[in-house]
Amino acid sequence: MEQLSPCQKADVLIESLPYIKKFYNETVVIKYGGNAMINEELKQTVIQDIILMRFVGMKPVIVHGGGPEITDMMRKLGKEPQFIDGLRVTDQETLEITEMVLLGKINRQIISLINNNGVKAVGISGKDGNMIKAKLKNPKLGFVGEVEEIDIDLIHTITDKGYIPVISPIGCGSNGETYNINADEVAGKVAAALGAKKLVLITDVKGVMKDQSDTSSIISHIKTHEIRQYIQEQIIGGGMIPKVHCCFHAVTNGVERAHIIDGTKLHSILLEIFTNKGIGTMITN
Amino acid sequence: MEQLSPCQKADVLIESLPYIKKFYNETVVIKYGGNAMINEELKQTVIQDIILMRFVGMKPVIVHGGGPEITDMMRKLGKEPQFIDGLRVTDQETLEITEMVLLGKINRQIISLINNNGVKAVGISGKDGNMIKAKLKNPKLGFVGEVEEIDIDLIHTITDKGYIPVISPIGCGSNGETYNINADEVAGKVAAALGAKKLVLITDVKGVMKDQSDTSSIISHIKTHEIRQYIQEQIIGGGMIPKVHCCFHAVTNGVERAHIIDGTKLHSILLEIFTNKGIGTMITN
Amino acid sequence: MEQLSPCQKADVLIESLPYIKKFYNETVVIKYGGNAMINEELKQTVIQDIILMRFVGMKPVIVHGGGPEITDMMRKLGKEPQFIDGLRVTDQETLEITEMVLLGKINRQIISLINNNGVKAVGISGKDGNMIKAKLKNPKLGFVGEVEEIDIDLIHTITDKGYIPVISPIGCGSNGETYNINADEVAGKVAAALGAKKLVLITDVKGVMKDQSDTSSIISHIKTHEIRQYIQEQIIGGGMIPKVHCCFHAVTNGVERAHIIDGTKLHSILLEIFTNKGIGTMITN
Amino acid sequence: MEQLSPCQKADVLIESLPYIKKFYNETVVIKYGGNAMINEELKQTVIQDIILMRFVGMKPVIVHGGGPEITDMMRKLGKEPQFIDGLRVTDQETLEITEMVLLGKINRQIISLINNNGVKAVGISGKDGNMIKAKLKNPKLGFVGEVEEIDIDLIHTITDKGYIPVISPIGCGSNGETYNINADEVAGKVAAALGAKKLVLITDVKGVMKDQSDTSSIISHIKTHEIRQYIQEQIIGGGMIPKVHCCFHAVTNGVERAHIIDGTKLHSILLEIFTNKGIGTMITN
Amino acid sequence: MEQLSPCQKADVLIESLPYIKKFYNETVVIKYGGNAMINEELKQTVIQDIILMRFVGMKPVIVHGGGPEITDMMRKLGKEPQFIDGLRVTDQETLEITEMVLLGKINRQIISLINNNGVKAVGISGKDGNMIKAKLKNPKLGFVGEVEEIDIDLIHTITDKGYIPVISPIGCGSNGETYNINADEVAGKVAAALGAKKLVLITDVKGVMKDQSDTSSIISHIKTHEIRQYIQEQIIGGGMIPKVHCCFHAVTNGVERAHIIDGTKLHSILLEIFTNKGIGTMITN
Amino acid sequence: MEQLSPCQKADVLIESLPYIKKFYNETVVIKYGGNAMINEELKQTVIQDIILMRFVGMKPVIVHGGGPEITDMMRKLGKEPQFIDGLRVTDQETLEITEMVLLGKINRQIISLINNNGVKAVGISGKDGNMIKAKLKNPKLGFVGEVEEIDIDLIHTITDKGYIPVISPIGCGSNGETYNINADEVAGKVAAALGAKKLVLITDVKGVMKDQSDTSSIISHIKTHEIRQYIQEQIIGGGMIPKVHCCFHAVTNGVERAHIIDGTKLHSILLEIFTNKGIGTMITN
Repeated sequence: MEQLSPCQKADVLIESLPYIKKFYNETVVIKYGGNAMINEELKQTVIQDIILMRFVGMKPVIVHGGGPEITDMMRKLGKEPQFIDGLRVTDQETLEITEMVLLGKINRQIISLINNNGVKAVGISGKDGNMIKAKLKNPKLGFVGEVEEIDIDLIHTITDKGYIPVISPIGCGSNGETYNINADEVAGKVAAALGAKKLVLITDVKGVMKDQSDTSSIISHIKTHEIRQYIQEQIIGGGMIPKVHCCFHAVTNGVERAHIIDGTKLHSILLEIFTNKGIGTMITN
Repeated sequence: MEQLSPCQKADVLIESLPYIKKFYNETVVIKYGGNAMINEELKQTVIQDIILMRFVGMKPVIVHGGGPEITDMMRKLGKEPQFIDGLRVTDQETLEITEMVLLGKINRQIISLINNNGVKAVGISGKDGNMIKAKLKNPKLGFVGEVEEIDIDLIHTITDKGYIPVISPIGCGSNGETYNINADEVAGKVAAALGAKKLVLITDVKGVMKDQSDTSSIISHIKTHEIRQYIQEQIIGGGMIPKVHCCFHAVTNGVERAHIIDGTKLHSILLEIFTNKGIGTMITN
Repeated sequence: MEQLSPCQKADVLIESLPYIKKFYNETVVIKYGGNAMINEELKQTVIQDIILMRFVGMKPVIVHGGGPEITDMMRKLGKEPQFIDGLRVTDQETLEITEMVLLGKINRQIISLINNNGVKAVGISGKDGNMIKAKLKNPKLGFVGEVEEIDIDLIHTITDKGYIPVISPIGCGSNGETYNINADEVAGKVAAALGAKKLVLITDVKGVMKDQSDTSSIISHIKTHEIRQYIQEQIIGGGMIPKVHCCFHAVTNGVERAHIIDGTKLHSILLEIFTNKGIGTMITN
Repeated sequence: MEQLSPCQKADVLIESLPYIKKFYNETVVIKYGGNAMINEELKQTVIQDIILMRFVGMKPVIVHGGGPEITDMMRKLGKEPQFIDGLRVTDQETLEITEMVLLGKINRQIISLINNNGVKAVGISGKDGNMIKAKLKNPKLGFVGEVEEIDIDLIHTITDKGYIPVISPIGCGSNGETYNINADEVAGKVAAALGAKKLVLITDVKGVMKDQSDTSSIISHIKTHEIRQYIQEQIIGGGMIPKVHCCFHAVTNGVERAHIIDGTKLHSILLEIFTNKGIGTMITN
Repeated sequence: MEQLSPCQKADVLIESLPYIKKFYNETVVIKYGGNAMINEELKQTVIQDIILMRFVGMKPVIVHGGGPEITDMMRKLGKEPQFIDGLRVTDQETLEITEMVLLGKINRQIISLINNNGVKAVGISGKDGNMIKAKLKNPKLGFVGEVEEIDIDLIHTITDKGYIPVISPIGCGSNGETYNINADEVAGKVAAALGAKKLVLITDVKGVMKDQSDTSSIISHIKTHEIRQYIQEQIIGGGMIPKVHCCFHAVTNGVERAHIIDGTKLHSILLEIFTNKGIGTMITN
Repeated sequence: MEQLSPCQKADVLIESLPYIKKFYNETVVIKYGGNAMINEELKQTVIQDIILMRFVGMKPVIVHGGGPEITDMMRKLGKEPQFIDGLRVTDQETLEITEMVLLGKINRQIISLINNNGVKAVGISGKDGNMIKAKLKNPKLGFVGEVEEIDIDLIHTITDKGYIPVISPIGCGSNGETYNINADEVAGKVAAALGAKKLVLITDVKGVMKDQSDTSSIISHIKTHEIRQYIQEQIIGGGMIPKVHCCFHAVTNGVERAHIIDGTKLHSILLEIFTNKGIGTMITN
């Protein structure tokens, strides 16, 4: 980057002030997933963005996914993953691998990154403090759960002391059984339960696009009442459908805005929060 | 068990009162490891004992180990474990497996058991909140660390809200690197840092015995100044040496008593705490 | 008592866990009266039971009576007690003796017993902090009052600091006059005002019995709607009627269960709370 | 009293302002005894004075005596009081009567008076909350104790909630036994333990007088180093000696001023606190 | 003044007790204006009265005016004041002078007087903490505002720490503009917003009088429903009308009593508060 | 300014992170004076800078001067200012004008600017809450004071509630008299009393320059032990001497760094805080 003058830098900081004011003391839930979790430079910038958010007065809460690493570990252990409608069939052994990889590996990497940037993070799953109550989604899928209730006490305990919470999408059933839950769903439900100002889903696509082959066809703003139509027209389709549903749940339950943004773009979260234009697709009620 | 009369039961409860008073509001650190983590009945009774401790006013803090399960997972992943002087040589891959198994698997099982018994548990490792600062123990061992400092803020945050903390023995270096640490060592250091009343190491042996083949030769009480002699006489030897060292560290740093007890005996913790005789070997300063 | 094995003791403790959980942080109001206040061994066991309750997380509140000692002191002072329908006719002199014996003698004995068992007690009457507002019950009875209102601030002030409150049944009228009140009534009203989980009336009888001469005819459970019938059938009669009325008031005002138990049985409170069967007669709404 | 003009009244209030400022938020311990406890008009004015003190920001703590009423009750019960050097010989029976009369009778009258004047009082003895630890003073005197230690927690608990504490001079020994203690001594020790600004002993004499038959010979100010001399000269003698000793203890342990004042004078406390001249004898270090 | 005896003084203090009780912990808003702000002796007594109020447990809040000093400064600066219906026409220059004189001069004098009497005062205007939101009253009057909303947070912040707030009647418009507001109006609105017990307007007249030339014709009590009639009969007229309107607003919005009193009488506030008769005119709902 | 790309903006924000972390929760005292208080654009940018500081977690405290406006008002009122060694000779009339202009005019402008930018400000002088105790500096100067003691309670009361304090440099003497104090001195003493991280003096010069006619000769860093030499060499001279003395006092009393910066440069504070190079002259111990 060509060097900016001090004056230009000052201007940028001053321009960010209205956005800082707007989100001051507000909770922002970030679903962290996809390539932004793999590429080293992207990883660093996502974490820097989150730390900046924290220091300018926001309360970031991170929910992470980890499908590819689970698949990877399953294969290493000689087990072939199976999917139904994009959801992982989860038998007892798969469940154990999933939990182990999510909390014991991916969550650890994220909190290490945050710790190394000067803010303390605490990693939890929905099992800690019995936080996420879940139930069986579909018997065919095995131990795949859907969220029934979020107990936000533990999250508040963690954020009140200044730690950033990093949540692995695991839930507990009423009989103590463990469930593997979709990370987008957990993010949406957590955002609603916390009364977050914003939900940001970091993905590998630019957002909802009218024409998948044309990135300039991105729809920058969808209102909840338009979703049905977009699905019928197959503009929202495939893996985008559950993401949009999570956003729908969030914004119809008190979250002001939900965003589906492209995590492969450097500082995508920052751009979303600190600029007028925004990037990706925003969903509001 | 033959049926006791109500009156006998009442007597037992009343007899427990002095012990309850003695430990009221006191922290007890329990290193949970060995066979007591594998046998289903033992697992249940250990957890019940801990929950009872909580309800009669103690503050239990659990540190767990997990060597056999790490070895098991390593082999499943095609990696042969190596040991030097009983310590696992830990290369990067082994480290990742260790962290994954400890926090993602064993820690999870323990908090599930506690949750299912009506008290909420929160599982953490030394990485959460940057709790355990560690440094390299010995370059030959790879990422095996020794504890430099314990930051007890996160533990207090968790216990103050009534959750039971369950700690996996992982630490962070000053450059953000991860270390695998011996669980006994973590338990001893955590007990000292918290000013615990008692440290209990649950093991697979009865305690320190004069004659390893004769369980009646158990030494029920060792004072810190006697340890050197016992080691010279090889009464304390092998895997017992590091355990005794942890106890030594704890009791010379403010912990009142440390105990090495036999986890294969049902309700061994309860017997240790609620009876006069105690079981296993007690170490005091 | 024949000696129990450590293992049997552990089992008893573990069996008590569900009861401990159930009453954790709950208030239990105990009306302490009758022979259990006179026999030395019984006195000790009642106090031990209450102290155990405190240490396993309950909040015991004691209300005591003292009829026989008042009568005794009156006679020593040359005054013959008179009763109408079992209630003491209370002229000015009797009132002074009553107050003096209740707070200055009996209350003192109870708090000494508690203090000597390692928990601090604070003795109060309804006059302290203007706690019990009362009004004249019946002009023929003189200064006998009935409770109009309980101000629970002082009780909370005492229990919040960990003291056990011991209450003498004296009340104040709106013009500052003093009233002698039935201790069962005070216990029932205090239990209702505090939202206690349980009210326990310690008496000299086994409970409500179908046949007074046959202790095996005890009715272990009465629902509030059955009380009228039992009174008509004279199964509930005499001194039992006001006791049942207090229980009725308590359970129809938020107390979960009220119990009339035999204080002459060793550890009767403990048996009532820590066993499934219970003893005496339980009244629920 | 002839009627004052509103303007004169306003002047009096304004004149009191410096004294109100001086004692704002300060503790004043008042030993209430002698004729001021018997004469109805004096009783009313003492209580009014104390209530005024409370409302203008002071924290009054009352300690009361009651020798004459104890003697009276003993005689009613057929027991002749015996004294050695002015101290009541206290056998078990006398002790019970003393405790009963102090807490059950006199203390009650005082808290009733306060309650009826619109401030809530709480009566306690040194047994409540194990507040006053005492030991045997002299075996010949029986259960007469001297103060070993004051635990001020209960007093603070009571005053922090806005209640006025009224203390009966009873203490507990280390084996749970009860002691009758001199009220002046308790007042002096309580004042020192609380770091009171002022200790006021209400008595039946005008103060320390050079000539007992001449009330104009009153010594208005004694410094601690002068006490010995006054005793040698027998200006301080008889029952005045222990009173002066209590004052000495108080002012040499942090209390600013101690006063021995004539309780038979109307509003003697008020005059002592709200005027420049003061009445009676003041002792300072 | 002829000297009062100590006993007479004590009686005055005791007589004040019911009034002290009545206003304990209550807020009293005092509009301080007129000659009582100019005459040195009156200034001293007003401040003493307010300080006494503070020490006997009330929470005084002062709102001051300052018309004559503003006029004075305007003339010094060569500007002739203009009035429409008794309200100062306020152009930009007049506004600046007004704000400067009110906060920079008069407010300063008042807080100095309070500070010098041993209580700390903090002077604020409606601009501090954006406390008084105002809007244009009448375009002809220029920057004269009327109160839209009072934000009481800053006042509570100040009084909670024991400072006495002294308020200059300046407000802010929604676009950041400054408004000059009538002090009586600010006092009335602040009293209502704080839920004050009493509003006292210190004026130069004795109160509402039936015959302006006869001070004995003062109406000591007006109920809100009588105001209209008094205005029609021109008993309330001229400058008294806005004062009565402020009182009306206050007492119809939760303030118990409003008083219009004669500030030229020594200790008029004290007499109003600490005597039965009161002075001036009281308005209640 | 040419338009920056979003990516460039994000980079600027990320670059500011280390500075934000460094000053998080730290107090920065800003002396606001000179041309930066007159030029409209500069005024806006100074306030924006301060508001940004607040939102990224710093605690800004503003002290303002106002010499030119005082002189201006004096002349309008027909009074010719006199100076001795650059200090205003302050008779009673000058003092009143000074106080009026500082708190009633300049302070008001600053808090209006802050309020209008979305943060609440509270303006105080050293008289409010008796905050600044001062004494006579030099009898020839009249009511010019020097700071004796700063009571930081009121400042903390204001900042704890999130208001930005704006301080006018007025102090009170021990006899209640008012003093006009140099604003730089107040800023330095307040910074030391608050344990500020940084003191920033905004002036009309670039900093300390070796050659006053050559702005490139600015000395960017002076250590306290070098000051004497610079004064001897007359590199520090004239009006710069008292400024440097204030900085000296601050950094030798716990403030980490003091800065003398050029307020005529846009966003000078921001550049000082958020860039590595800094501007103006920094003084450290």
